Amino acid sequence: MNPFDDEYFMKQALAEARLAEEEEEVPIGAIIVCNNKIIARAHNQTERLADPTAHAEMLAITSAVSSLGAKYLTGCTLYVTVEPCVMCAGAIGWAQISVIVYGAPDEKRGFSLFAPKAFHPKAIVRYGILKDDCIALMQNFFKRKR
Amino acid sequence: MNPFDDEYFMKQALAEARLAEEEEEVPIGAIIVCNNKIIARAHNQTERLADPTAHAEMLAITSAVSSLGAKYLTGCTLYVTVEPCVMCAGAIGWAQISVIVYGAPDEKRGFSLFAPKAFHPKAIVRYGILKDDCIALMQNFFKRKR
Repeated sequence: MNPFDDEYFMKQALAEARLAEEEEEVPIGAIIVCNNKIIARAHNQTERLADPTAHAEMLAITSAVSSLGAKYLTGCTLYVTVEPCVMCAGAIGWAQISVIVYGAPDEKRGFSLFAPKAFHPKAIVRYGILKDDCIALMQNFFKRKR
Repeated sequence: MNPFDDEYFMKQALAEARLAEEEEEVPIGAIIVCNNKIIARAHNQTERLADPTAHAEMLAITSAVSSLGAKYLTGCTLYVTVEPCVMCAGAIGWAQISVIVYGAPDEKRGFSLFAPKAFHPKAIVRYGILKDDCIALMQNFFKRKR
């Protein structure tokens, strides 16, 4: 039995998403894992930083490369609660992240619609992990905002 | 006669690209213009920051929103010496930049190949401005690196 499975790490990304929710940010969280170790945690901060590029994945990538002192994240896995957008997918591609795991699909802004070939050609993608929790966070947030 | 035309501003982006070249970075420069005023200047810093997301356009967007204190750059024009990649195109879309002007095409990594619908649907795109200068900078850089 491996305690460090996709669900384990997605729960950590969900914990980040809940921090975003507490800060009135769109509740998306991301973590980056290298050899079963979490090397970066981040959540969406577009409101706080008033910066449309401050998505969870972007902040996690910048934090991870800084933590490793390397420009590439080959061999690392990114867990993110919602499907990455075009921008983040491009960043994931540049960082050469090997495995991308996301929870909820984003049918309006997701990379799979706009830039399906943004990742490294050998990258592995898994999705739907704790999907209901990831979706519920988003739906509750936007329901409250209306 | 308008002294503030595309060539005028592309020359400013080229000046940024030359700063990148001096720092041994891939020589790409970007500026953001609002009401004929340059509100942000940046050049590629992926090596210095050891961060694959530190492209000229990303740094210029973050600088411009910070300068304006606004999350969106509607009404602004981005000048960049080389066609934006998928990541930068996604960021340009989120920032709702109204006009995108680039010099050289990027046939390997350009957004037009991988994410042609990344910009705001009403965004205006112009390209080929001072193209030869933009290409020459890139070609000389990669020739020296070989």
